[in-house]
Amino acid sequence: MSLETISTGDELVRGRSVDTNAPWIAEQAAESGVLRVFHTTVGDDPAALADAFRRAARRSDVVVVTGGLGPTEDDHTRVAAAEAAGVDLVEDPELTAWIRERFESRGIPLLPKNLVQAYIPAGAEVLPNPLGTAPGFRLEIDGASLFFLSGVPREMEVMFDAGIRPVLAERGPGGAYGVVVSFGKPEAWVDERTKDLAGTHDLSVGITAVLGTIKLTFQATGPDARERVDAAVGTARERLGDLVLEADTLAGAVGHLLEERGLTLATAESCTGGLVGRLLTDVPGISANYLGGVIAYANEVKEDLLGVPCDLLVEHGAVSAETAEAMAAGARETLGTDFAVSITGIAGPGGGTEEKPVGLVWFGFAGPSGVESLSRRLPGDREVVRGFAANVALQLVRRRLQTAARP
Amino acid sequence: MSLETISTGDELVRGRSVDTNAPWIAEQAAESGVLRVFHTTVGDDPAALADAFRRAARRSDVVVVTGGLGPTEDDHTRVAAAEAAGVDLVEDPELTAWIRERFESRGIPLLPKNLVQAYIPAGAEVLPNPLGTAPGFRLEIDGASLFFLSGVPREMEVMFDAGIRPVLAERGPGGAYGVVVSFGKPEAWVDERTKDLAGTHDLSVGITAVLGTIKLTFQATGPDARERVDAAVGTARERLGDLVLEADTLAGAVGHLLEERGLTLATAESCTGGLVGRLLTDVPGISANYLGGVIAYANEVKEDLLGVPCDLLVEHGAVSAETAEAMAAGARETLGTDFAVSITGIAGPGGGTEEKPVGLVWFGFAGPSGVESLSRRLPGDREVVRGFAANVALQLVRRRLQTAARP
Repeated sequence: MSLETISTGDELVRGRSVDTNAPWIAEQAAESGVLRVFHTTVGDDPAALADAFRRAARRSDVVVVTGGLGPTEDDHTRVAAAEAAGVDLVEDPELTAWIRERFESRGIPLLPKNLVQAYIPAGAEVLPNPLGTAPGFRLEIDGASLFFLSGVPREMEVMFDAGIRPVLAERGPGGAYGVVVSFGKPEAWVDERTKDLAGTHDLSVGITAVLGTIKLTFQATGPDARERVDAAVGTARERLGDLVLEADTLAGAVGHLLEERGLTLATAESCTGGLVGRLLTDVPGISANYLGGVIAYANEVKEDLLGVPCDLLVEHGAVSAETAEAMAAGARETLGTDFAVSITGIAGPGGGTEEKPVGLVWFGFAGPSGVESLSRRLPGDREVVRGFAANVALQLVRRRLQTAARP
Repeated sequence: MSLETISTGDELVRGRSVDTNAPWIAEQAAESGVLRVFHTTVGDDPAALADAFRRAARRSDVVVVTGGLGPTEDDHTRVAAAEAAGVDLVEDPELTAWIRERFESRGIPLLPKNLVQAYIPAGAEVLPNPLGTAPGFRLEIDGASLFFLSGVPREMEVMFDAGIRPVLAERGPGGAYGVVVSFGKPEAWVDERTKDLAGTHDLSVGITAVLGTIKLTFQATGPDARERVDAAVGTARERLGDLVLEADTLAGAVGHLLEERGLTLATAESCTGGLVGRLLTDVPGISANYLGGVIAYANEVKEDLLGVPCDLLVEHGAVSAETAEAMAAGARETLGTDFAVSITGIAGPGGGTEEKPVGLVWFGFAGPSGVESLSRRLPGDREVVRGFAANVALQLVRRRLQTAARP
């Protein structure tokens, strides 16, 4: 069984927007053991759309199309689908009633153009859109099933769950999917130690790296798919040891370890400007363990709120082991937490010197047993340096928490 | 002239990674007046790749392919390109020498497989990759020019700038491109007031909305393209008035206004957990005006670092006008800035009550003339609520700065 996706919309073709729908659909399909073979992005052009639908129907079993179902003149998916199937658009009276009811209950005036959305290709089956006003539909062309969904991500997801997931589960080969996320060693190192698993467990292994976080994915179809994936995941976890994160993300792992050990954390951020706090507070329910922090972008804030001595700043500079340690100790003291982590560095593009180049970042860590610091020379532009620095800080906390005793 | 893009790699087809290369290329092309008509994503399958290259060559003038040029077994682009063109892969002695030199100068041992990268389809022209080890190439198939670039974004961009941008400038229709970014009114409101510009200035108008930031794009080709785009941009700016941002982003606009007026700002964040600080510090050079802030995720941090009275927290709750105002006043006082903004709300998924539902956020603002607050009921999940809340806070600061006198 093969699946492909088609994303529609001039905003995608012209490059203004990044399409997150198609990757999401591919990932869901992979979990059912169905591999996406093609993806196409087409602009708001009825002929190009009809052509793309026909071509996809010829080569794939299931085609998922997103976008272009709205009521405006840009929305050509409905017409193009009918043309590709060689049928007319027909009014669905139930849809007309549903659209009327929907606008009334929301108190929005119904315009004639909104009723365009009640027309679907003859023979198509309606896919309800409980979160929006643009219904979708399912249409068979050349023996392939084409599903047309809203382009609004949240609406698309709900429509996919109701209308497509069961089809994949039923018609797909059955499959299993597993993930192992690690941090602390480079992609090539992890790859070297896990690439044999594809052969030994008869599955496919993928590896991606984002700002030092390495994600291994295992995917199998056919008999014993679950067992083979579980075995590969188990072996990978064993080989990678404590590099394997305790959650899906580094911040989630820190949150998990803090909660498990009943410990509290504070942050003191200079060059990352709040990014570490933001990542930690992405984790729901972390408020009992991550109490907060200080964004000490200016030196006077390092002095006034974190108690970094002015002399120390003058003598060693804001980007130094001494300042990083004083910031961490100050945050721990001021916020009254078990641990604190600090970041101070030169994210660029300006501010670098020969001695302290752009990308140099110092990290401090303070706990009951004292204060320590480390530095990294991080590659990349301002955004990448800041992203990497946040991850290095979180990993530093994670390492110390792994060995921390309960208080 | 037509352009299309092909992104290669199993990690894209299987949905693990979001492709940012193809949208970037489309945007660059649009600036030369060249509209991308198609985009295809293909996995690491030599036959599917060759098929995609041939199909693209038949229907487009310029095809930009990214990825699959590395030395590993997954990298099939080179072989598939030769197959699509019906030629052999041949060694380029200059490339061999360049690869040897590159590994030597970096002190990395050269493996035999790395020399695979010195083979390109017969008749292809090398596109140097100054930032990486995988060179690209340009190949003519069926009268179309196919450009094969590294899939690493930074390498791809440099290769594009050197090898493709000049081709588009020379062969493209010539074009112009303009952007107007606004905040403060919904997409439909902005659309209503600007959609006539497409007709009156003979250009295409695009509109996108991300967390309340509305981006209008104007694009024209042919004679007087620059004049027509500039006229449309001028009219749009006039009609949207002070909704138009003073920079590309809301945080950039706040940075610009702070610098222009010589004022300083502090932040006090609860539910956004550092996101506002992070957005402000995305702006290079803001350190003279944004001094920092307090991430007051726990109530004790609101009390201890921001001086929010415990009684007030007990009586009104952490998510209230009173707490938001006390947080802003406390941050302004503690950090000694001209202004301070605060955010406290319920981002969810837990923590909502009937009286204070998920999505309710209070904002405080403190300045020389006093303290004020406002609330919003924001839609969406945790991530969206936090993103919106950060933007509302930045917009609040921006509105006050627009009318602020220099100190």
